[in-house]
Amino acid sequence: MDKLREVTLEDLDAIEIGAAILGTGGGGNPYIGKLRCREELKKGRRIRVIPLDELSDDARVVSLGGIGAPVVGVEKIEQGEECLRTMRALEQETGQKVDALISSEIGGANSMEPMLTAAQAGIPVVDGDGMGRAFPEMQMCTWSIYGHKSTPAAMADEKGSIVIFRDTPTEVWLERLARATVVEMGAAGAIALAPMRGSFVKRAAIPNTITQALQLGRAVLESQRRNTDPIRTILDKESGQLLMTGKIVDLERHLRGGFAVGHVYLEGFGDHESQRGEIRLQNEFLVFSRNGEVEVCVPDLIVVLEADTGLPITTEMLRYGQRVAVVALPCHDLLRSKEALAVIGPAAFGYPEITYTPLARNPTTQGVS
Amino acid sequence: MDKLREVTLEDLDAIEIGAAILGTGGGGNPYIGKLRCREELKKGRRIRVIPLDELSDDARVVSLGGIGAPVVGVEKIEQGEECLRTMRALEQETGQKVDALISSEIGGANSMEPMLTAAQAGIPVVDGDGMGRAFPEMQMCTWSIYGHKSTPAAMADEKGSIVIFRDTPTEVWLERLARATVVEMGAAGAIALAPMRGSFVKRAAIPNTITQALQLGRAVLESQRRNTDPIRTILDKESGQLLMTGKIVDLERHLRGGFAVGHVYLEGFGDHESQRGEIRLQNEFLVFSRNGEVEVCVPDLIVVLEADTGLPITTEMLRYGQRVAVVALPCHDLLRSKEALAVIGPAAFGYPEITYTPLARNPTTQGVS
Repeated sequence: MDKLREVTLEDLDAIEIGAAILGTGGGGNPYIGKLRCREELKKGRRIRVIPLDELSDDARVVSLGGIGAPVVGVEKIEQGEECLRTMRALEQETGQKVDALISSEIGGANSMEPMLTAAQAGIPVVDGDGMGRAFPEMQMCTWSIYGHKSTPAAMADEKGSIVIFRDTPTEVWLERLARATVVEMGAAGAIALAPMRGSFVKRAAIPNTITQALQLGRAVLESQRRNTDPIRTILDKESGQLLMTGKIVDLERHLRGGFAVGHVYLEGFGDHESQRGEIRLQNEFLVFSRNGEVEVCVPDLIVVLEADTGLPITTEMLRYGQRVAVVALPCHDLLRSKEALAVIGPAAFGYPEITYTPLARNPTTQGVS
Repeated sequence: MDKLREVTLEDLDAIEIGAAILGTGGGGNPYIGKLRCREELKKGRRIRVIPLDELSDDARVVSLGGIGAPVVGVEKIEQGEECLRTMRALEQETGQKVDALISSEIGGANSMEPMLTAAQAGIPVVDGDGMGRAFPEMQMCTWSIYGHKSTPAAMADEKGSIVIFRDTPTEVWLERLARATVVEMGAAGAIALAPMRGSFVKRAAIPNTITQALQLGRAVLESQRRNTDPIRTILDKESGQLLMTGKIVDLERHLRGGFAVGHVYLEGFGDHESQRGEIRLQNEFLVFSRNGEVEVCVPDLIVVLEADTGLPITTEMLRYGQRVAVVALPCHDLLRSKEALAVIGPAAFGYPEITYTPLARNPTTQGVS
């Protein structure tokens, strides 16, 4: 596939599926954002994409998107230009125009927000993002991990409020203050982070992730049309590994500190007959164990798919009795450095006893039995 | 007394007492602020005071002070220039220098903060404030009631965070977002509100309230020295009314939505023998009833004083068995308009069944029996 230069109406459905797969159970639902992107395209606006390596070194690139509780984002109607207003507020704050946008988080809803705003503002969106997946907090993106100071940052809500975080002592403090603000805003708002130089973005972004989402989604749609095995297609596309096909036999979810925390228990079938699987989750799927032994954990991607359709299942949509395929995809090397693991490794999520062992990039893939 | 032109070291103790009386049980403790003002004066800085009527019409006046839980403000050590940094952040945001400061709330801790910042910044503080007493929320000050839009507003904490509320749909929304932010900051921070024109401040401020606090405090100190009746002195000074001398026989306080809410029950003694008094409180003392009949309510001031010393008792210092004098002081006419009563009348505090009847300004005063 040539480098992606523009996202068309037809691409949006595929990106939606691919972004949800990369969301590893979290990241919010990209559906509403897709509908809004579609409306912009129908109005004649364009979603122009710039490949990461073509960014000019001195371009001013802003990472923006929604912040809040994903489940609220689906139900609370947006005014529609929240992200655009955060971008304008940042331009006012810094006195400089923004040249391009980028997603902090390709997994889930924030795949769509920068595309939407790019269409509204008439500037391109970069093919890449700051996670290559989804994570629950802002300081977990590569910008923060590799030294970007995200203040001044601007927040907006649907009622017209504009809040500027001009300075915070750390990236974690920005996350804390922004989180408190969005809760008061009604658990859904938009945030834009301090402009980054193109030279930094080229170094710190996970590359080509809009393309990746698009290809993943296309593969699923294609295999649905041809009635081939969608799980196998995904595994082939992403050098992924099928961890288990199984039935959900127990499920425990509760809210702790604003996050959905819990466990899913699986009973394997087919090739995994009589195996017991467990996934620990915290908005996203974090740790997969087989028969009590940890096999895969963050920052590698653990994805739960409907066994029949290959469509991704988010943590809130898990149900007793579902037949699923659990797939592991290797994360990008930028998430595997020592600095990165300190922020997004298993210990950072409360599992200091788990040592991260990078998932191999070329495992033997297996079909669904 | 001539117009107050400067606050001296000797004045600070008196202002502390007077501000606490005007705090009507709430507003936070001015003690720490007094110590910090004292340090500034000892360094050779000055607290210059400008009478309200001498403000130039186009002066840019900023209302600033602490925000948060008063009880935390006493224990959490400030960095010391939080208010000054909010002022500088506002200057940066608006591109305009601030000419003078004013307190939003003379009652309690925020009597001191603008004096402190004025000394640090080398600008004067206005003799007046936005409440003439204490109230729990920002939209309850006269600036908001009489049409000032308080955004952009700037907040700071002791860790170096600066947050700008550039726009909010209403004054209440500013209060909500700032309150959520200060909770996350650790329940104590500083806030400066959008600059006001001198012409507006002259119309909307409660005049001469630094002078009033100073005189009240001096009267109490003087009567302590001379061993005269301090309650009587206060009543004389303020055209106040002694509602009841009594003993606290029951006390109920709990936290609801961040506010201290409850009741105090009194058994009268002396001239009030066999009377039952009740005070409803919500951070401040809001409603006084005698034998089940409401007599005085917000926005008029209900003050609880130690019967022996005349020193004010804040809601959190109330104790079973205390012998107290309950005094009512008439509020300023700016708090009695229809617009004002909609925001700070009894209905606004959850007592729609109580009709506000203004306290007379020249009642027959009575001594403590």
